[in-house]
Amino acid sequence: MIEKETPTAYPIHPLLSGRWSPRAFDEKPVKEEEIRTILEAGRWAPSSNNLQPWRIIYGVKGSETYDRIMGCLVEFNQSWVKNAPVLMLGCYKKTNPKGQENFHALHDLGLFMANASLQAHDMGIGTHQMAGINFEKAKKEFGFPEEYHVATAVAMGYYGGDPEGQLSKELHAQELKKRERNPQSEFVFNGDFKK
Amino acid sequence: MIEKETPTAYPIHPLLSGRWSPRAFDEKPVKEEEIRTILEAGRWAPSSNNLQPWRIIYGVKGSETYDRIMGCLVEFNQSWVKNAPVLMLGCYKKTNPKGQENFHALHDLGLFMANASLQAHDMGIGTHQMAGINFEKAKKEFGFPEEYHVATAVAMGYYGGDPEGQLSKELHAQELKKRERNPQSEFVFNGDFKK
Repeated sequence: MIEKETPTAYPIHPLLSGRWSPRAFDEKPVKEEEIRTILEAGRWAPSSNNLQPWRIIYGVKGSETYDRIMGCLVEFNQSWVKNAPVLMLGCYKKTNPKGQENFHALHDLGLFMANASLQAHDMGIGTHQMAGINFEKAKKEFGFPEEYHVATAVAMGYYGGDPEGQLSKELHAQELKKRERNPQSEFVFNGDFKK
Repeated sequence: MIEKETPTAYPIHPLLSGRWSPRAFDEKPVKEEEIRTILEAGRWAPSSNNLQPWRIIYGVKGSETYDRIMGCLVEFNQSWVKNAPVLMLGCYKKTNPKGQENFHALHDLGLFMANASLQAHDMGIGTHQMAGINFEKAKKEFGFPEEYHVATAVAMGYYGGDPEGQLSKELHAQELKKRERNPQSEFVFNGDFKK
């Protein structure tokens, strides 16, 4: 596993500080049982009214499903994702059992994906979540009815550290870049919001 | 900490299987530094283009901010939340720096909240996320400009196990209920979506 420095302002659990989003992966395959274990972690995420709105499509490199997921990504993501042993689509049901809009479905897909990513990280497997997909194409491609939305894609594989120069020069530099986040003072308020 | 059984189909990390959403809390206060540590875990979540759209309002029991957050919850949540040592609102910026809609902001708030909840759990602190809030009132109350949305609330405190009969009979039964989730066969597809 390629470790990255995470300059935390308060000491947090190593599972949470150690996870990062690689673009280069080891070519070692991820086994079916490992994929299922990662999804199992997502399964136990909380969700609004325990509706569990998440739906997951996954494909393993070399399979038709993998190529079909790849075909739903935007060009930039296709350029680096081709080395990932596993691809996924993160989808959700937009409505609750009464047919009303579930305003929190997208949020709850995020809760699912966080759990899945952390389980993967614990197994030495990196995940890179992507927003850059063709939503409408993906929905059609995998036969989702109207009340569903395909929101995200995920590339997954053992952390690799770009040992064979998988990435372009620019993405290779990003792969090695130090992790950065805004300070809490910019997003935490003990009282009114301040810009 | 009150432990709950989580009947996982595959063995997952205990931090992920152990977390659950209590409604009863110990009266032991949560210190400022503990709150900051929990938020720090959220801070290192991934987000689309690293935009970090999350914004957090928090208040500690006994403070004016706490009461103002309480006033934004729906009646049912107010009924049990009153024993929580800390309340939070989960908010996000709807636009990217170009002023275009950030379609993944709500998803990324979910990624933040998962990390925060897991860090809290590791510290013996339970979190209960809520969708039942008055969004518009909360946005006004805390002075958010138009391009922000208040999406969720969170009650937080040391796991308590309802030792003093904090909860109604019905909610007490829910507090002790076994955890349940749909099987993977209902939401994971290695190929086309199936209902």
